[in-house]
Amino acid sequence: MTTRRQILARFTAVAGFAGGYAALHALGLTGSEAWAGMPDLKPGSGAGVRVAIVGAGPAGLAAAYELGKAGYHCTILEARDRAGGRNWTVRRGSEIVYTNGTKQICDFEDGQYFNAGPARIPAHHQATLGYCREFGVAMETEVNWSGRARIQVDRLNGGKPIEMRQAIFDYRGHMAELLAKVGKAGALDQTFTGDDKDRLMEGLSTWGHLSEQLTYQGADPSGYEVEPAAGAQSPKPKPPLPLNVVGDPFVQAVSTFADAADFQATMQQPVGGMDRIPAAFEARLGNVIRKGCEVKRIRKTSKKGKAGVDIFYFDKVTGQAEVLSADYCICTVPLPVLAGIESDFAKPVKAAIEKNKGINVGGYKIAFQSPRFWESKDHIYGGLSFTDRDTFATWYPSDRFHAAEGVIIAGYAFNGRMGERTMSEQVAYARETIDRLHPGMGGAMKHPAIVNWTQIPYSQGLAAFLSDTDRAAYDLLSQPDGPIYFAGDHLSFVSSWQQGAFCSAHRVVNLIAERQRSLTA
Amino acid sequence: MTTRRQILARFTAVAGFAGGYAALHALGLTGSEAWAGMPDLKPGSGAGVRVAIVGAGPAGLAAAYELGKAGYHCTILEARDRAGGRNWTVRRGSEIVYTNGTKQICDFEDGQYFNAGPARIPAHHQATLGYCREFGVAMETEVNWSGRARIQVDRLNGGKPIEMRQAIFDYRGHMAELLAKVGKAGALDQTFTGDDKDRLMEGLSTWGHLSEQLTYQGADPSGYEVEPAAGAQSPKPKPPLPLNVVGDPFVQAVSTFADAADFQATMQQPVGGMDRIPAAFEARLGNVIRKGCEVKRIRKTSKKGKAGVDIFYFDKVTGQAEVLSADYCICTVPLPVLAGIESDFAKPVKAAIEKNKGINVGGYKIAFQSPRFWESKDHIYGGLSFTDRDTFATWYPSDRFHAAEGVIIAGYAFNGRMGERTMSEQVAYARETIDRLHPGMGGAMKHPAIVNWTQIPYSQGLAAFLSDTDRAAYDLLSQPDGPIYFAGDHLSFVSSWQQGAFCSAHRVVNLIAERQRSLTA
Repeated sequence: MTTRRQILARFTAVAGFAGGYAALHALGLTGSEAWAGMPDLKPGSGAGVRVAIVGAGPAGLAAAYELGKAGYHCTILEARDRAGGRNWTVRRGSEIVYTNGTKQICDFEDGQYFNAGPARIPAHHQATLGYCREFGVAMETEVNWSGRARIQVDRLNGGKPIEMRQAIFDYRGHMAELLAKVGKAGALDQTFTGDDKDRLMEGLSTWGHLSEQLTYQGADPSGYEVEPAAGAQSPKPKPPLPLNVVGDPFVQAVSTFADAADFQATMQQPVGGMDRIPAAFEARLGNVIRKGCEVKRIRKTSKKGKAGVDIFYFDKVTGQAEVLSADYCICTVPLPVLAGIESDFAKPVKAAIEKNKGINVGGYKIAFQSPRFWESKDHIYGGLSFTDRDTFATWYPSDRFHAAEGVIIAGYAFNGRMGERTMSEQVAYARETIDRLHPGMGGAMKHPAIVNWTQIPYSQGLAAFLSDTDRAAYDLLSQPDGPIYFAGDHLSFVSSWQQGAFCSAHRVVNLIAERQRSLTA
Repeated sequence: MTTRRQILARFTAVAGFAGGYAALHALGLTGSEAWAGMPDLKPGSGAGVRVAIVGAGPAGLAAAYELGKAGYHCTILEARDRAGGRNWTVRRGSEIVYTNGTKQICDFEDGQYFNAGPARIPAHHQATLGYCREFGVAMETEVNWSGRARIQVDRLNGGKPIEMRQAIFDYRGHMAELLAKVGKAGALDQTFTGDDKDRLMEGLSTWGHLSEQLTYQGADPSGYEVEPAAGAQSPKPKPPLPLNVVGDPFVQAVSTFADAADFQATMQQPVGGMDRIPAAFEARLGNVIRKGCEVKRIRKTSKKGKAGVDIFYFDKVTGQAEVLSADYCICTVPLPVLAGIESDFAKPVKAAIEKNKGINVGGYKIAFQSPRFWESKDHIYGGLSFTDRDTFATWYPSDRFHAAEGVIIAGYAFNGRMGERTMSEQVAYARETIDRLHPGMGGAMKHPAIVNWTQIPYSQGLAAFLSDTDRAAYDLLSQPDGPIYFAGDHLSFVSSWQQGAFCSAHRVVNLIAERQRSLTA
């Protein structure tokens, strides 16, 4: 492993990441552990081999698509009446049914939607973007950070919203001023001398937008108190917010969230909804996907000395109990759901699933259709605002700018506290959040739609970070249990992203292809 | 002025900028110096008043549109065969004719284009965005900063491209480490004590992505050496670039350019080309615009004791010399061009124009149609790369992601050095630039199209920053010379932006309306 990685690192440094992998691939150095781009199975190599795939989320769809290209006979059993799994776009008529029976029917106007699950794709998630490219899914920019988005915390700034740009650039100004000050006082003289120190001080000044006296007194990146215009209206920057405001741990955490590789510009989204991705798979897979088929039991078989698998399921459309026999099973079911499916998995596998059935992180979105006050009044075009309330993030749409209405996610949170309220309390609470961020606008929002993933059947949570929380279980479930291969974003280092599901599916597809090669060699 | 501004500041702090102005407006405290939103002239108040507008750029178009709504009889004389002025989208068939006679005809495929002049709109430019909203111009996000865009400088990093994200986050990491180090050594003890210092150190650690030892050893915002995937492929961040690379003045300047208020996310662009804005005006103004009419002389008149103006022009379509009489003239002609028009402007006005006729900054763009290698190979979705070569900036398209081809601006620069080469030398030089940023791809680009604004008739440069360079001339030309009002982005504090042209036009429109009110009161 180490050697392969070291070589990888060397190639990466020379040729850039993609080139590095291509070169490694040519040298035969990549294995199924590394995502080496889309699988490239030999056409026809899967002829006569049956694969039962449980779950039509991104992992299941990609596995069926890739194996299908090589001639494998795939069947996806999907319990829901739609493909996509957590990739779910809620629009007019969408039914949101909870495990406790609560039912909402979305009544947005036609054309309005929100992505209840994944809603943005980082530029480096090239498995996801690669499918978008291959399928011709129309893409647009998802704005993840807007300088005009806001942070509101009651105990800070008199409770008045702080603009993202103020948080970022005022904090940087204060830091640059501090460093310049200790630099002038000689504290950097041990580290830097002569020209180096001069250059450092000059750089600090540019970077932190410092005055000639190396103090920070506000600068245009933080916004204007008086905007420039014509005649005598010259610009005047806002006075800086104090360090105890912009350096507050909450403010700092939320203002810099888009620094992370996975949240950094440029992010993408499919035009019209994230579910254009499963729809594109579905258009290619056709009746490979059997919807409304709830898997009840998974059983290894040995027929005529050949290992296989029987999948017992209930077809909700016909009302019949059925069984699907296959040579392989790819099981993409999330652990909390999988723990409830009867199986003859190996004991350690069953134990690992049982142990981790409660690790799924909750995820919550409350969306409203609304006049686009955030654009017309507040000049916010996409991006996220934050409060320290239970709603946490407020997410503005990145499409159809300047249209009369749009869908605002007034709460996007990872804890269960929103979901503990009644539906009408949740709506009232989200309106209050908007009133803090955009005074007076909470009441402008209409048609609420709530998705609390913990309550969504067949998901029961947003994501599991198994590689972080139980590496032994992760390693075990990353290996096949006889003819059964587990896949999904929880079996990747990219949990909670479609990329993780695709990487995991590609890995499993390659493992099955390798096994077939060894069988037929 | 000061008092008005102080009040403005107070309102702004309380109610946000737009609210502040609205409140001021209600109190009657705004004057024509402050952009108070779109003009709101009384319908019919301009009946019988003739206004001759020279130039159908954004200033002229907005002036005619706003005055027209109030019943003024406007005529725009435009020397070119198109409206828009420097707002110019070059697409298949566009003719680029230089003052020296050089002629190019753009041969991009249908649907491909580039914006030769303005190409992005900041969120706070609400005069520009306000027109887009009013006219229903479809908008999309213009990506101005992408973490994957690159900086290439021969003398740095062995000449290998540096990613934007490395420049930003490695520099910040180094700065945070430095500050943490001097903080640990006690250098901040005079400024911060106890809890405050602990919080500062904690904040530094988050902000700079420092290790537990408060050192910077790279972090995922700067990108991965090994990307996370499935199986055993856990992520590994890139090792940090040294301070002398990421702190280099050139690297620092270009990596942080998008901090500025005018370049910060979120920026917008009209779908299909910036010229959708003049096209929207044109659809509303119809034959108010007379194209191909080159103004030769502007003369004040006094007919029956009433002040007015005669505009002598040559109609290139009919081949006739003509004269247009009006009560007012709004002259939006850039100073280098205006200096060549005969006039009876007041002596100080003529002197101010003559003195400043050479201040226009040059602007240069060289564009190519090309396969979108920047997306497929390098995962760059919009944004700008930079080299320290004469081409300076390379600009990737923000629309039609994943299409087979797109238009890349392989050079966007403000000096005249590119334009001093022959056309074929310019093309070869731009290809070399791309080869530095994207090794091996310079040859993939085709259909070059070059716009050197210094050589474009009726513009002769990109922009004049008169308010900065000659405040006395700026103040003088901001006042009417009898019935003649000067307008344009050069007569605003927002030079080189359409917003400046609109602010200036709105100011002049309000001044004329005030004058009419005083005449008829």
